[in-house]
Amino acid sequence: MNKDIEQTRAGDQGDLGSREQQLLEGERLDDLMTKELQIIQSREVFSFSMDAVLLARFASIPPRGKVIDLCTGNGVIPLLLSTRTRAAIDGVEIQPRLADMAKRSVTLNNLDEQIQIIEGDLRTFPRTAGQGIYDAVTVNPPYMQTQTGDQNENEHYAIARHEIHCTLDEVVEASARLVRTGGKVSMVHRPNRLMDILESFRRWKLEPKRIRFVHPHAEAEANMLLIEAIRDGKPSVKLLPPLIVYTAEREYTDELKKLYYGSNGVWSDGQERKEEV
Amino acid sequence: MNKDIEQTRAGDQGDLGSREQQLLEGERLDDLMTKELQIIQSREVFSFSMDAVLLARFASIPPRGKVIDLCTGNGVIPLLLSTRTRAAIDGVEIQPRLADMAKRSVTLNNLDEQIQIIEGDLRTFPRTAGQGIYDAVTVNPPYMQTQTGDQNENEHYAIARHEIHCTLDEVVEASARLVRTGGKVSMVHRPNRLMDILESFRRWKLEPKRIRFVHPHAEAEANMLLIEAIRDGKPSVKLLPPLIVYTAEREYTDELKKLYYGSNGVWSDGQERKEEV
Repeated sequence: MNKDIEQTRAGDQGDLGSREQQLLEGERLDDLMTKELQIIQSREVFSFSMDAVLLARFASIPPRGKVIDLCTGNGVIPLLLSTRTRAAIDGVEIQPRLADMAKRSVTLNNLDEQIQIIEGDLRTFPRTAGQGIYDAVTVNPPYMQTQTGDQNENEHYAIARHEIHCTLDEVVEASARLVRTGGKVSMVHRPNRLMDILESFRRWKLEPKRIRFVHPHAEAEANMLLIEAIRDGKPSVKLLPPLIVYTAEREYTDELKKLYYGSNGVWSDGQERKEEV
Repeated sequence: MNKDIEQTRAGDQGDLGSREQQLLEGERLDDLMTKELQIIQSREVFSFSMDAVLLARFASIPPRGKVIDLCTGNGVIPLLLSTRTRAAIDGVEIQPRLADMAKRSVTLNNLDEQIQIIEGDLRTFPRTAGQGIYDAVTVNPPYMQTQTGDQNENEHYAIARHEIHCTLDEVVEASARLVRTGGKVSMVHRPNRLMDILESFRRWKLEPKRIRFVHPHAEAEANMLLIEAIRDGKPSVKLLPPLIVYTAEREYTDELKKLYYGSNGVWSDGQERKEEV
């Protein structure tokens, strides 16, 4: 489900000359369809997917405090979360090229005071940053185990998609170390890894509380999984209503459009939205 | 979701005098809406629920071989499975009153050659019956942990609904011991126990392969979970399309009706149906 919903190419509008000067070769400026947010992308390096947007809508985020997004890529999730909270948001990305794109996107949106992008390895980050210091963690990790899938793609995509620099269990471990007791960890992943996800979550004392499966059609198997856990929480999980992407007529469902674009301008009128998916 | 779909009271039809003579006080004869099957029920003791019917439709059952249903109650699942397979079907029930009802229902349907009801404790049954001797196991176990829920109900219902005589983990252990390597175990349960279910399954080498959540409405949380695992299988699970029970108009959805009553007489015309839910 790669970027089925195309971002508007803000650069085409020609009214952002100074912003465009911050783009490197092959990069473009896309509209995030949420408030006035824009993001630097590059087809050669990284473009965010629907998965990241749905996670940014799904995650329970405190109004204040400290939030961190792991595997942040070009920073799409911190940017989207900034519309929902006044919390300080950190984003960690291991690829220098992507971390640089993310930093420039933050600056371009005048969000340097709220969002800090850190180029680093999530496996060692809790040791340097400190343990239990975040109120919430979000993460859209690489989905594929290294022995599977097409690894002939370019290095940037390979690292974003495959467990090259971190395994699922390492991602969960880092999330669990970074979040405080009672804090929340939200992840998007593939349903076929459900067992591994849940096993890792329990191993690292993250108790799943909300799971939502995303189905491309009402009659199709799920191809995406949104999950939220509480550090040291009590066992009992809710299975939320299924999120269906397409109608029988192959159009986006009303709910998907509402989540993606907002309804009644919720996502674009400068109003804060606190409800969860 | 207790027996939302009422069974027809076959006894009311007055054409089954000899069958009715086999009923004890408080019992009635219900139509299973599947072929010509009928079942002895009693509101005071036990009536099967939609859960059991959906499990009987969902489970992958081999055309021949040996199948066992644990926590069989009044034998609804063995009766329903008999329409899908020529396999020998055993049913184990710990409550003498329910096992007796199940036995009489088997006889009443002339299925004594295919179905054997065993009054026994699933915790000790694998020791006496033998390990790895079944090709498939089905089970609709008590859902509630003993410390929760209303336990002021009568003893028969309490035992059927609460983990009084067996815990979830004991049910999974027994299933895993009874099924052969490569054989399938299917269970219906509540989604809030998902973590415990999956943890037990992995502990006992049952690898989940198919999970289907049942939602009362398209916009409601799931309130039922159908899961099938393979003994010693490889990790990778499919999340099947959601099964929605009611339409927005509060009628049963077409799919639910098809599963329950069959479509084009699939369940009632004597044709075997091999498809899975």
